[in-house]
Amino acid sequence: MPLRKTDDEEDSLFEYSSTEPGAMPGTLTIESDAPLPVITLIDYDEGHANRKIVTAPEECSEYLDTETVSWVDVKGLGSEQILQGIGTVFGLHPLVLEDVVNVPQRPKVEEYNNQLLVIARMVNLRESGRGFISEQVSFILGKNYLLTVQEEPEYDCFGPVQDRIRLSKGNIRKQGADYLTYSLLDAVIDGFFPVLESYSELLEELEDEVVFAPTRQTLGKIHKIKRELLALRRAIWPQRDAINTLIRDGSSLISEEVRVYLRDCYDHTVQVLDMVETYREVSASLMDVYLSAVGNRMNEVMKLLTVISSIFIPLTFIAGVYGMNFDTSASPWNMPELEWSWGYPICLLLMGAIAGALIMYFQKLGWFENFSGIEEK
Amino acid sequence: MPLRKTDDEEDSLFEYSSTEPGAMPGTLTIESDAPLPVITLIDYDEGHANRKIVTAPEECSEYLDTETVSWVDVKGLGSEQILQGIGTVFGLHPLVLEDVVNVPQRPKVEEYNNQLLVIARMVNLRESGRGFISEQVSFILGKNYLLTVQEEPEYDCFGPVQDRIRLSKGNIRKQGADYLTYSLLDAVIDGFFPVLESYSELLEELEDEVVFAPTRQTLGKIHKIKRELLALRRAIWPQRDAINTLIRDGSSLISEEVRVYLRDCYDHTVQVLDMVETYREVSASLMDVYLSAVGNRMNEVMKLLTVISSIFIPLTFIAGVYGMNFDTSASPWNMPELEWSWGYPICLLLMGAIAGALIMYFQKLGWFENFSGIEEK
Amino acid sequence: MPLRKTDDEEDSLFEYSSTEPGAMPGTLTIESDAPLPVITLIDYDEGHANRKIVTAPEECSEYLDTETVSWVDVKGLGSEQILQGIGTVFGLHPLVLEDVVNVPQRPKVEEYNNQLLVIARMVNLRESGRGFISEQVSFILGKNYLLTVQEEPEYDCFGPVQDRIRLSKGNIRKQGADYLTYSLLDAVIDGFFPVLESYSELLEELEDEVVFAPTRQTLGKIHKIKRELLALRRAIWPQRDAINTLIRDGSSLISEEVRVYLRDCYDHTVQVLDMVETYREVSASLMDVYLSAVGNRMNEVMKLLTVISSIFIPLTFIAGVYGMNFDTSASPWNMPELEWSWGYPICLLLMGAIAGALIMYFQKLGWFENFSGIEEK
Amino acid sequence: MPLRKTDDEEDSLFEYSSTEPGAMPGTLTIESDAPLPVITLIDYDEGHANRKIVTAPEECSEYLDTETVSWVDVKGLGSEQILQGIGTVFGLHPLVLEDVVNVPQRPKVEEYNNQLLVIARMVNLRESGRGFISEQVSFILGKNYLLTVQEEPEYDCFGPVQDRIRLSKGNIRKQGADYLTYSLLDAVIDGFFPVLESYSELLEELEDEVVFAPTRQTLGKIHKIKRELLALRRAIWPQRDAINTLIRDGSSLISEEVRVYLRDCYDHTVQVLDMVETYREVSASLMDVYLSAVGNRMNEVMKLLTVISSIFIPLTFIAGVYGMNFDTSASPWNMPELEWSWGYPICLLLMGAIAGALIMYFQKLGWFENFSGIEEK
Amino acid sequence: MPLRKTDDEEDSLFEYSSTEPGAMPGTLTIESDAPLPVITLIDYDEGHANRKIVTAPEECSEYLDTETVSWVDVKGLGSEQILQGIGTVFGLHPLVLEDVVNVPQRPKVEEYNNQLLVIARMVNLRESGRGFISEQVSFILGKNYLLTVQEEPEYDCFGPVQDRIRLSKGNIRKQGADYLTYSLLDAVIDGFFPVLESYSELLEELEDEVVFAPTRQTLGKIHKIKRELLALRRAIWPQRDAINTLIRDGSSLISEEVRVYLRDCYDHTVQVLDMVETYREVSASLMDVYLSAVGNRMNEVMKLLTVISSIFIPLTFIAGVYGMNFDTSASPWNMPELEWSWGYPICLLLMGAIAGALIMYFQKLGWFENFSGIEEK
Repeated sequence: MPLRKTDDEEDSLFEYSSTEPGAMPGTLTIESDAPLPVITLIDYDEGHANRKIVTAPEECSEYLDTETVSWVDVKGLGSEQILQGIGTVFGLHPLVLEDVVNVPQRPKVEEYNNQLLVIARMVNLRESGRGFISEQVSFILGKNYLLTVQEEPEYDCFGPVQDRIRLSKGNIRKQGADYLTYSLLDAVIDGFFPVLESYSELLEELEDEVVFAPTRQTLGKIHKIKRELLALRRAIWPQRDAINTLIRDGSSLISEEVRVYLRDCYDHTVQVLDMVETYREVSASLMDVYLSAVGNRMNEVMKLLTVISSIFIPLTFIAGVYGMNFDTSASPWNMPELEWSWGYPICLLLMGAIAGALIMYFQKLGWFENFSGIEEK
Repeated sequence: MPLRKTDDEEDSLFEYSSTEPGAMPGTLTIESDAPLPVITLIDYDEGHANRKIVTAPEECSEYLDTETVSWVDVKGLGSEQILQGIGTVFGLHPLVLEDVVNVPQRPKVEEYNNQLLVIARMVNLRESGRGFISEQVSFILGKNYLLTVQEEPEYDCFGPVQDRIRLSKGNIRKQGADYLTYSLLDAVIDGFFPVLESYSELLEELEDEVVFAPTRQTLGKIHKIKRELLALRRAIWPQRDAINTLIRDGSSLISEEVRVYLRDCYDHTVQVLDMVETYREVSASLMDVYLSAVGNRMNEVMKLLTVISSIFIPLTFIAGVYGMNFDTSASPWNMPELEWSWGYPICLLLMGAIAGALIMYFQKLGWFENFSGIEEK
Repeated sequence: MPLRKTDDEEDSLFEYSSTEPGAMPGTLTIESDAPLPVITLIDYDEGHANRKIVTAPEECSEYLDTETVSWVDVKGLGSEQILQGIGTVFGLHPLVLEDVVNVPQRPKVEEYNNQLLVIARMVNLRESGRGFISEQVSFILGKNYLLTVQEEPEYDCFGPVQDRIRLSKGNIRKQGADYLTYSLLDAVIDGFFPVLESYSELLEELEDEVVFAPTRQTLGKIHKIKRELLALRRAIWPQRDAINTLIRDGSSLISEEVRVYLRDCYDHTVQVLDMVETYREVSASLMDVYLSAVGNRMNEVMKLLTVISSIFIPLTFIAGVYGMNFDTSASPWNMPELEWSWGYPICLLLMGAIAGALIMYFQKLGWFENFSGIEEK
Repeated sequence: MPLRKTDDEEDSLFEYSSTEPGAMPGTLTIESDAPLPVITLIDYDEGHANRKIVTAPEECSEYLDTETVSWVDVKGLGSEQILQGIGTVFGLHPLVLEDVVNVPQRPKVEEYNNQLLVIARMVNLRESGRGFISEQVSFILGKNYLLTVQEEPEYDCFGPVQDRIRLSKGNIRKQGADYLTYSLLDAVIDGFFPVLESYSELLEELEDEVVFAPTRQTLGKIHKIKRELLALRRAIWPQRDAINTLIRDGSSLISEEVRVYLRDCYDHTVQVLDMVETYREVSASLMDVYLSAVGNRMNEVMKLLTVISSIFIPLTFIAGVYGMNFDTSASPWNMPELEWSWGYPICLLLMGAIAGALIMYFQKLGWFENFSGIEEK
Repeated sequence: MPLRKTDDEEDSLFEYSSTEPGAMPGTLTIESDAPLPVITLIDYDEGHANRKIVTAPEECSEYLDTETVSWVDVKGLGSEQILQGIGTVFGLHPLVLEDVVNVPQRPKVEEYNNQLLVIARMVNLRESGRGFISEQVSFILGKNYLLTVQEEPEYDCFGPVQDRIRLSKGNIRKQGADYLTYSLLDAVIDGFFPVLESYSELLEELEDEVVFAPTRQTLGKIHKIKRELLALRRAIWPQRDAINTLIRDGSSLISEEVRVYLRDCYDHTVQVLDMVETYREVSASLMDVYLSAVGNRMNEVMKLLTVISSIFIPLTFIAGVYGMNFDTSASPWNMPELEWSWGYPICLLLMGAIAGALIMYFQKLGWFENFSGIEEK
């Protein structure tokens, strides 16, 4: 059944985060099946770049106050103790920690004292090639350091940026933590494009299917695509607002130069949103097309029934007439045709003439062209 | 009949409050079946927390001017005298008292002299698990005191906050009445999530039902869910605006620190609204799917009729022809087939051939696959 | 015919006011069937309240400059001479007089020198209980006086306010003309609620009718309700904007205290608009439900036809076969069944078996349950 | 064919103006069938008013610098030479001349140095009474002069204003060129009302037709009305914005007093737009009603077919059974009914009973009431 | 199959540009089939105008600092080396070069130091006359120079502007690079009009087709046109915003005089958008009309079936009755009609009477008029 999702494909549409009503602000909700956090620390400046796996959050402390850029990447939200530890080391406001841990939150940008919180949403194409998985990525940008927290360790689009740091490609090593934030945000936004491409292909396939071979499954597919595009829009829309806020309101943590780059990132976000809206309109139109196509199909079925009934019902009536048992011997008025020498051939000719006339009539109405339409599919 | 509501499930969509046209501003409308007010007073500061049931509003007076935080919670709107008494004790503007008592009002925030009025709307899942009950909660925040007024004593989401005060969990006892207001508002907003979850489940159930087994009841269910989501939106939309006003315009009664918390509460409200809108779009799409599915069903029915008619009508015609009574003795042209030795078997073979050809034709059209589709449901 | 309106129920949707293109500004259009103006003057201050019927507008002059509040209420627009007289006495700008007389105008607020013009729209439930009559009420507020002009003398919601002045209920006698304006505007807005209630009831009735017993009349009713709600929205929407302008832009004629009351009045207007929009969405959804319900009905009809045809057409064919006249004496292959001893009973059994199998098939498809559905209605 | 327009009724929806891509700004496009310009000059002040037909634009020069108000009205855009001459005499910016001549442009207001350009759109009811003709009217207001340019000489709503000048009605002769501009603009806007009225009538006619007697023509009519209302909206929408700009931004060419009049003109524009939107919603609803009505009609047709088939098909089957030729002499089991004395009457009674039962069943379903519905139409 | 596009007609709807997620900003993506860049340099001032084809970007350097206006036009994006060279010569910001090369980008205006980047979208009618090709045109305006980069060398609307420079038509040679930018932008916008015209024609054709002869192809055509208009809107919408930004925010590179011209260009953009929206509404309405027309067609088919079945089924029943084999010799009650002298003629008359009555009934229902409707098409 196409609408049921398998375990692998959980539904991202109906997800939301909530603590118990009335719970204390800053309460962390750890899901039991969440993977344990893995902490990676990358420390670099123009001359060097070190990468190490960190086991206890406290190990990061010494790097935070140095002049070098320190990027701490946490993957997995499965341990309250470690997450609280990170909160302590980075001096996070309880609400910041809550937003980072109690996923999903709406994408947003907020400034807390000397830290900038950016909540973003990353999407990855499923391995099946249809549908997407969405996860939250949180950025906490401070002076000379950046903390990123990801929901899932499995999907990741930060690899290329790590490579650029390691290989000192471009000027990333010459720039500060704000440029790093931009680079990662840009990678998150660029990750939407492969997902969009898969929907583009799916929609093109559906367009042909709807007009030429609509089935009951088609209906489910259109509804599913509409739902998923809705989820995609819900992911990208607030992201656009967040990045716009970042550019417009500024922050002392982001240099003027990086703001130019963020403007470019904003353009990409708008482009993604633009395409999601376009796809939504196309899929809404497809639903209309489907409904009309169902009507068309019914027309074809009805025409077939009408053609066959209209031709044979009158003929059967004639046959019925000459099957009546009026007593021909009782009177010369009683069915004298039955005793004519040419009675039967004339009767058959009459039937043939009626059938022929009806066929010509239907041909004139153009009904037969359409039947071939059904067959070809 | 699914659209009729039982007594237990009154219709929250079509509710509204109105005094008689031309009535004096400040006129209170007490409904005869409203429960009598129960007044609870909680007085606390960092060191202590007292809770007592108050019988006459005047008993609260002495607590209002103290430095400790005093929270007066009124449940039930069934006595004009008591409510007027509360108005006097707290020095409420007549319009404030009217808004608090003549429920439902639209959620809003208004400042009157040294008091801040917040009208909010609280929803609770029905015990049946489907649908929700919505009630008005009014907050009047003054210096060092908070008055809350609830419509129904039965449903309540303030318990956990009372516990936090009693047990001095978190820093609630260290904070003022503004933080208490935030905590309660947050609890109200968090109360929307279980309701949303129930709609999420209902929509998923309906999605399968619509595509695979649409019945007349399905139609009523979709319409009902659309109506209820409309009511939910009507509850949350102005709430968002109200909280936004609170953050943006500020008030001397709300400290800068609490405003940061309210921003978090605002995020949750936006998230709720977001999901309500998403569900509304999904249910609108479901209506389209339903219409198409009805068309599909009709197609199946028509195909069945067409298959049976198309096969048997021509055969019946042939049988009719050989049931004609032309006098075979009158001429050799009159139905000589009747007297052939192999007349009958040939006739049967002809009928079989026609039926077979038609069946193959329908099979080529792919009609038989669909019939199984009907059966499985 | 439900869509035709009787003389009594003129169509408020398609009404509009226009002078001849190119006519001079200030040209008054007096409709021939408009009732003659009746002028009532109420003069009051804290200590006294007089009410008198005025025959000539000039009689009002002496009251306008006094310190007491003078309320001149004009009902009916049937005499150009009297209306011009009022214009002269109150010193109205020609465009003000035009807006007051050439009804209907869009609700609006405009300030002319030392006068404030408020155009409002009042609705009254028809006596039949269904549908509403809408009429224009114009307020011209000056220093210490208020001129109100109503289109129809018959419907009026100003009575309770007059009573409050007469009986000195509340503080209306202590307040100025601005408070009087507020009180009357509030009465106008409150007059929308009974109309809304009637639509609420009508919609609930229609909801059941649409799903369980849709008829051609239902369609007309839904369209009619949509049209009327459109007219209602057209009445309340600009009213909201007008009152908002009044609050936001202020005017020296309206005291700060009354502005607080107007904010309350604005809330009611928003509430009315809110409900009109909700009802519109419900009625739009009803149209979709209707369309689907018509499809459902057709399905039932088709199923009935299909069941009967599918069962009897094959049986008739069998009867036709054994009605053929092949000469059994010509060959042993010619219809030997006819001469078998058990030929007829076997034939009947065969027919019964076929009919039984088909009935079981249809039962498996669940079609018979639905037939009962038709019957019950 | 109702959708094809005759030569007389060109399509105003799909019209637009464009010069060749890459053409110089200020290039004039003269259509070959455009009528030759006719220039009328009216020069007036409080004491006198002269009107003369001008053949060469240069004749106007002497009037422009005088203190009297000079109104030059040009009708027809058929001569580039004359139009360029006007451009020279009035010192028009090349882009102004382009906007005036290359019709249609979007309505707008623009200020060029010491001139104010107002592009407006005038509509006139067709003589057939259905549909409208729209033409561009451009106003160039300078100090003490007004140049108006109309597309078509035939339709004109400026006559009454000319009369007011000639007869010195109202205070038009005492006012300047700005008041004249207002008077003409107001006439243009008032010209929309008769067109709206014709649509109001058309919609009311269609409402009955759609519910009670929908035909294929109805469908075309609804689509046509939707298209025309779209064109009407396209004409009035930017006009509203333009007049609003005029009021809001002001201009030294427009006195404070005239601005009050323009506010009134703006109100009328909003009213027109309001009604166009209302009519559009009504016609959109009509399309839904039509679709449902078509479904209803099909239901009626199907019911008729079902009633007749359901009654006669079983009866024909019975007749078929007793038309079988089983040999009654071969065995007593072979159709003994045929030889019973009361066989035939019993058979007829059986048939009658079946038919009666079915008729009662259909009557219980309420189907026969509807048939009368078809007939009455 | 109408929805599949041939190689020649690639789909412009689903196109987008994206670098690899995580790629360095400024990474250029060169498509392998992109044509090699052809560089044309036009250098002019009031007295002279030179045009030359440039092979290496470096050749342009010497022209950039002169007082004459230098226009460098690059067509084709097929060589990273040449494009990087251009970036170096003009001193482009890496993000500017990325936007210019990684097509398509959303139209926008951005200022970088002393350069103004304008991304625009140009459309050209396909040679087939249906559908359009869209390509990106980027403008980089500096002091005294303009760099334009086009995606495709084939389609171009810059020719007329080159001619105006060469022939010194108008005042283009007297103006600076900003006026040149305006002239080219205006040519780009004007290029939308022929495309709009083709859609206008297509829609008019479809309108007749939908109402009078809807086929399955019609459905595909409507969906296709909706999709293409969506793409057109996506091209023009951000262009409007971009030009508006240009006018509103100004830039030292654009003179006050040219800004007046840009305002005109903006008007044209709004006009294009206006018409695209109008066409979209018309095509959405066409989809509704189509659905209704399909319903209408089905009604006609059903009526034909119903007429033929209703007439012949009862007659066949009567014939069946008199074909029964009740033994007339067994009793006088057994089918005595068969032996009446006038049995057969009376029977035929009865049949004729029934048929006639039914035909009259259907005629009264007005069904026969419609049949002619089918035929005429």
